[in-house]
Amino acid sequence: MKKYCEMEKEELAQEKARLEARYQEFMKKGLKLDMSRGKPCPEQLDLSMDMLKIQDYKGETGIDARNYGVLEGMPEARRFFSQLLGIQPDEVIVGGNASLQMMYYLIELGYRNGYPDSERPWKECKKVKFLCPSPGYDRHFRITEYFGFELISVPMTPQGPDMDEVEKLVSQDAEVKGIWCVPMYSNPDGYTYSDETVKRFAALKPAAKDFKIFWDDAYCVHHLTDEPDRLLNLLEECKKCGSENMPFLFCSTSKVTFSGAGVAAIGASRTNVEYILQNMFPMTISFDKLNQLRHVKFLKDAQGVAEHMKKHRAILEPKFKTVLRILKEETADCGEIAHWTDPKGGYFISLYALPGTAKRIVALCKDAGVVLTGAGAAYPYGIDPQDSNIRIAPSFPPVDELEQATRLLCLSMKLATIEKLMEKF
Amino acid sequence: MKKYCEMEKEELAQEKARLEARYQEFMKKGLKLDMSRGKPCPEQLDLSMDMLKIQDYKGETGIDARNYGVLEGMPEARRFFSQLLGIQPDEVIVGGNASLQMMYYLIELGYRNGYPDSERPWKECKKVKFLCPSPGYDRHFRITEYFGFELISVPMTPQGPDMDEVEKLVSQDAEVKGIWCVPMYSNPDGYTYSDETVKRFAALKPAAKDFKIFWDDAYCVHHLTDEPDRLLNLLEECKKCGSENMPFLFCSTSKVTFSGAGVAAIGASRTNVEYILQNMFPMTISFDKLNQLRHVKFLKDAQGVAEHMKKHRAILEPKFKTVLRILKEETADCGEIAHWTDPKGGYFISLYALPGTAKRIVALCKDAGVVLTGAGAAYPYGIDPQDSNIRIAPSFPPVDELEQATRLLCLSMKLATIEKLMEKF
Repeated sequence: MKKYCEMEKEELAQEKARLEARYQEFMKKGLKLDMSRGKPCPEQLDLSMDMLKIQDYKGETGIDARNYGVLEGMPEARRFFSQLLGIQPDEVIVGGNASLQMMYYLIELGYRNGYPDSERPWKECKKVKFLCPSPGYDRHFRITEYFGFELISVPMTPQGPDMDEVEKLVSQDAEVKGIWCVPMYSNPDGYTYSDETVKRFAALKPAAKDFKIFWDDAYCVHHLTDEPDRLLNLLEECKKCGSENMPFLFCSTSKVTFSGAGVAAIGASRTNVEYILQNMFPMTISFDKLNQLRHVKFLKDAQGVAEHMKKHRAILEPKFKTVLRILKEETADCGEIAHWTDPKGGYFISLYALPGTAKRIVALCKDAGVVLTGAGAAYPYGIDPQDSNIRIAPSFPPVDELEQATRLLCLSMKLATIEKLMEKF
Repeated sequence: MKKYCEMEKEELAQEKARLEARYQEFMKKGLKLDMSRGKPCPEQLDLSMDMLKIQDYKGETGIDARNYGVLEGMPEARRFFSQLLGIQPDEVIVGGNASLQMMYYLIELGYRNGYPDSERPWKECKKVKFLCPSPGYDRHFRITEYFGFELISVPMTPQGPDMDEVEKLVSQDAEVKGIWCVPMYSNPDGYTYSDETVKRFAALKPAAKDFKIFWDDAYCVHHLTDEPDRLLNLLEECKKCGSENMPFLFCSTSKVTFSGAGVAAIGASRTNVEYILQNMFPMTISFDKLNQLRHVKFLKDAQGVAEHMKKHRAILEPKFKTVLRILKEETADCGEIAHWTDPKGGYFISLYALPGTAKRIVALCKDAGVVLTGAGAAYPYGIDPQDSNIRIAPSFPPVDELEQATRLLCLSMKLATIEKLMEKF
């Protein structure tokens, strides 16, 4: 078959008619699939059911996890997360069930009170700007948008954010107060920041004294291959540069045990940990220590997590392979109408369709019963300037439904591409 | 024996010498007791261990509690708390493990964003004042102090806060934005607001359009007698007055199941619930629904809670009786050197010693190994203008230790009283 980009008007119209007939068949199937979020599937959640059998409540230092107190988290839970984050236990605060809520809290704290290195709270700054490597995680961007900060898009590359751009913005503009990062198996591209990128982050010389790196290590143990990516330790690199108060690290078991009932943690310098705990003190007596203990007893340590994550991989890897195979199959004949990422871990595949077609593709899928993440969601303010990126979340649907959904996605993409190409005639 | 207040200098000195000798004996015992907080004892926590056997994860409407979503809380958990609060399920938001954190969140929301009835966020008001019925709960007062609000003390009475004073302040001063209330078995007095008090709250005509009542119904099911107090439903009374957007109700299972791992809830008008959920949306995907489900499966409903609370009463009632008995015994001979409350529920006994002696009493106890709540803690800024009130928390220590601690407390009180009385000579 001729490549789409080489087709004449008549040929495109014929292909369009063929595709539309196939699309009508999909419409008849009455699909009802949701691929909009990176939700684990029930089989993944089943992997942690044994954790619920754990009824221990005494911590290893004698703390009764059922009672009040110990705001910073159970000592064994701090040690556990310190292993995952590659830092010291006293550089960890273990919280409740959502790392997103901890990120929100630290943004709110900067906004209302500032940080030890702040000249004033961010709310008293004329303007606050946050860097958003894009495509990125919509819920990150939303927090800073909600606080009225200006979101500044920075291009993502397979090595991480465009560091030339980051360095320029951070060093020249004191209104730039922070950056959102998913440094490993990034959402949605699945890229892991290179050693050079991490070192350049640590070496940043921000114009704002209280510039903060929000380092969401959400997928630090979520490998999908035998040769996992490796991420350099940011806090350690920062210590070498004397910038250890710059980063906040985040990590959780949301996609290790239960998405709705996991445990989240912050990693930071001792100075920051002390400041955060001081400020958290008026807010709460303590987080759910019983759930912290349950997690440590079940997962034990970094080695235990690695073993557990192999079971997740066994469920997820075939799903990722299914999507990648169908994307390849379905577009093989049309020429290079799209490209996509092939991540070694994480929860997403990032699809880049012909510019100007992403919204149309998502709409076509939705009309035929498959809900994808909204086109543009991975960009600040929900606007993809290229209207090209689509985030594919393969984790939740069973493989057969995923195959259906991906075929529909490809079909919709081809249709939207043809429609776009016909515009030039 | 002569009453203390009738003793001459020499008699006082003799009594002082006797008490000091007894105090030295206490010093030798090397006591190490903490009665500073209203912490349940291990036996109380043991009452809920069967809850940890529950491994169900499917909600009654099919929701998988292990996964993301359902920010407002599991439907059955909303119904459960609606029963405890006497309101409708859609007037409830079920959250994480700490009602204090939910109160903090709503103060923070008012501060940063205001409420639907706000003319501007509280942070943009020249001054924000909060009414603090005193003695009251130190952690309430601390939140508003942390946000820089001015704390205004309002006298407590056995019927609730002095409503003449509340009405005057609220109706005349638009800077008064809220009030902290523990309406049932108040902390620390154990008073329950009378029907008239609740009705007067509902009928308030605040100068500030966005005046809020923080109604912490922490002890709504925590009865200690066969004739429990009854509290009128504030939200219902407010509806009658058209003031249903004024109150925020709070409730938790912290002292029903586990203090560190319970479930908390907000009760409010539909308008407020929708506004809060809209604002919570950027903060988190959802709270721990597995713990919500676990609680509902274990406690079932209001009747189930009432049955469960009888077991708590069986443990707590003897402790309260011990304290009350010893207070009476030890002070019988000295005349009326103090008075105290005899609550029908809750977690505290409020002791009023001779003005100017509370700090000294707490210090004497501490030196002999018994930590009490800091004198003054129950007042705004930690300052009891009378230096008279001491909060007794009988729940945690075993009865024999509690007896020791209470005898030491009485001894310390008598010593401090004598010291005070000798000042006049």
